[in-house]
Amino acid sequence: MHPEVLDKCRRARKAAGVLSGLSTRQKNKALEKIALSLEKNKNDIIEANKMDLEQLEKSDHSSDAFRDRLLLNEDRIMEMARGLRDIASLEDPVGEVTRMWKRPNGLDIGQVRVPIGVIAIIYEARPNVSIDAGGLTLKAGNAVILRGGSEALNSNRALVKLVQKSLSDLELPGDAVALIEDTDRNAAVDLMQASGYLDLLIPRGGPSLISAVIANSTVPVIQTGAGNCHTYIDYNADIDKAIAITVNAKVQRPGVCNALETLLVHKDVAPRFLPKVLPVLIKMGVEIRGCPETSFYYPDINPAADEDWETEYLDLILAVKVVDNLDEAIDHINRYGTGHSEAIITDSYEHSRIFMSRVDAAAVYVNASTRFTDGSAFGLGAEMGISTQKLHTRGPMGLEALTTLKYIVYGTGQIRE
Amino acid sequence: MHPEVLDKCRRARKAAGVLSGLSTRQKNKALEKIALSLEKNKNDIIEANKMDLEQLEKSDHSSDAFRDRLLLNEDRIMEMARGLRDIASLEDPVGEVTRMWKRPNGLDIGQVRVPIGVIAIIYEARPNVSIDAGGLTLKAGNAVILRGGSEALNSNRALVKLVQKSLSDLELPGDAVALIEDTDRNAAVDLMQASGYLDLLIPRGGPSLISAVIANSTVPVIQTGAGNCHTYIDYNADIDKAIAITVNAKVQRPGVCNALETLLVHKDVAPRFLPKVLPVLIKMGVEIRGCPETSFYYPDINPAADEDWETEYLDLILAVKVVDNLDEAIDHINRYGTGHSEAIITDSYEHSRIFMSRVDAAAVYVNASTRFTDGSAFGLGAEMGISTQKLHTRGPMGLEALTTLKYIVYGTGQIRE
Repeated sequence: MHPEVLDKCRRARKAAGVLSGLSTRQKNKALEKIALSLEKNKNDIIEANKMDLEQLEKSDHSSDAFRDRLLLNEDRIMEMARGLRDIASLEDPVGEVTRMWKRPNGLDIGQVRVPIGVIAIIYEARPNVSIDAGGLTLKAGNAVILRGGSEALNSNRALVKLVQKSLSDLELPGDAVALIEDTDRNAAVDLMQASGYLDLLIPRGGPSLISAVIANSTVPVIQTGAGNCHTYIDYNADIDKAIAITVNAKVQRPGVCNALETLLVHKDVAPRFLPKVLPVLIKMGVEIRGCPETSFYYPDINPAADEDWETEYLDLILAVKVVDNLDEAIDHINRYGTGHSEAIITDSYEHSRIFMSRVDAAAVYVNASTRFTDGSAFGLGAEMGISTQKLHTRGPMGLEALTTLKYIVYGTGQIRE
Repeated sequence: MHPEVLDKCRRARKAAGVLSGLSTRQKNKALEKIALSLEKNKNDIIEANKMDLEQLEKSDHSSDAFRDRLLLNEDRIMEMARGLRDIASLEDPVGEVTRMWKRPNGLDIGQVRVPIGVIAIIYEARPNVSIDAGGLTLKAGNAVILRGGSEALNSNRALVKLVQKSLSDLELPGDAVALIEDTDRNAAVDLMQASGYLDLLIPRGGPSLISAVIANSTVPVIQTGAGNCHTYIDYNADIDKAIAITVNAKVQRPGVCNALETLLVHKDVAPRFLPKVLPVLIKMGVEIRGCPETSFYYPDINPAADEDWETEYLDLILAVKVVDNLDEAIDHINRYGTGHSEAIITDSYEHSRIFMSRVDAAAVYVNASTRFTDGSAFGLGAEMGISTQKLHTRGPMGLEALTTLKYIVYGTGQIRE
């Protein structure tokens, strides 16, 4: 294995043993110490970040969006510090005994929530992830190995150095937050294959990063972020609410994974709904790609092709399809959806129950915007991304998703007959 | 993708949509129908199994142990039928709303337990797994794709045919329980890489099967069965209980994953404990491999080499090490253990607490035999194996481990500000 990866995995395992035994108070003290250190050393961080920005200028990657993701200024540093204090204020999931029962032979068997152990995070050139994700894993009692994009290396180095210094000052192991400094692809692949050293790998970034991790990883992975989300307007939906929810889900922040991508409309409500909602959307800059029935009710749009049903635009584009009934809507969603967030707007009790039960997604809504699928809107606090797989955790990943359960068994000398 | 794998994955996905909506009563009726069908058609099953046994005779694999795993006789068929009725009697985990809360904006957000979807199981030449594992996945509302060892193909074909017929007779989709009949390695590898088609892959079998699955799979996997288990005898352990537990954990069924492999003994109790326990074990046919201190107290044993600490014997062999204190015992366990089942025998309140909290394993015991780590002994009913990974589920996998949680959100028109 890559020597840096192996070395940092081993040290992280050792640090994880210490972290899992820390009290909530000790972890919160560490988060506060790191927050203070970021504030106090903001100039050093900005300095390091400038080196990254200068190298970016000289490279092919340079674009306004890329530059914006990479940029750390005073405001953003203060935001990271605030984020750490928010994490400190969240309830500590570790130590909860979720249930306990007595067996006929007198054994008391229970399950206690414990940290996962060593978690690696592979992400792109957003240095704030080092602090946000690092803070969350730390609060859940885990050691973390960070592997950020090469463009952010100087920023990440500066940040992780401050984190490690803060931990050492509190006599905690600095190895609990490690950065893989070799930004070569080989180091990342070795991290993906560090089965036995890592307990979990979380990719945070675009589809190409996530599929590379799934293809290469032998370590358990949590898949995040793909969101081809639908809203289905049922035959008896309240038109005003349906318009408000559709517009909100599409326009309020089109670049995020819980934004609306395909609108499905029951044929009985289409004549009343489409001529009202489409001009509003178009006026707000949304391009409409509709099925033939959609054009029938509102001709001034582009035709939808088959691939539109499977596209996550992350942009001001909306696919629209008129459907015959609830079944067709549900089948469409289960076929083309990515299992993220799906909504029905209806006044039918029966339809709401059928939709809730048959739609297979992390979050299923009745009469609300899919934009609510995230940790803070759900009341879980900060989050690590939205899981779109079914194993371990589904939907917004808060602190609890960074823990696991251990069986604890108390006996008085029981043996198996 | 391999055409048979692709076809069966697609059909299973469709069947999963039906299965997830079945009531508990419908699922139990199906399990009872299958049990009856096995009993009624036992001669057909035995006939098919004979073909497998005859082919085995002609092959290189033929050994008594292999033959025994492959064999289906009337008793074993009755046992499979009884197993299905036991599964029917278990509580259905699907549909439980595990929690629900109201947000300040009036949204009601909850989590409901739902089937995982399509689960594949790759196993060796034990045809009873087709029924045991198939029954469990069915009860949890999942479709299942079975891929058994080539040596059991005729038996598996006969069993799955009866299952599918039973389902069709109840107007349920036969595709809910599918068998991959191509026993070539390519078909298995394509199944491991059917990411997007499968929600979960569970390997059931020896270490080489499990490591092949981990190396090749892009589908989320649950790793099962590796058990290098320890029992630590603390300085003030009750000697009689310590002997009874040690003997039980090592001898009662040495070939299973929760059996004892390394005994750790505090130096202060070693002079009283080792000369008593070792002759008992040796008399029962156990080979002892001990550290130098162990030989000091009981010379008539073999010396332990370094590799003994990491070996899962699954046999009547026991490694024994004298340790200076609790810390050394815990460090040894966390270093060499496979995270399965670990026990301390002690009368120290403090040591019991430290051991419980610091030992990193699926099940941690005080004063009891590690042999209890399984679904029935824990009171979970039938099980799918013992997970030794930390993601999703840890320890005995009952029905709940074959489900996931879906967020359900009830609104009255809420949009995101």
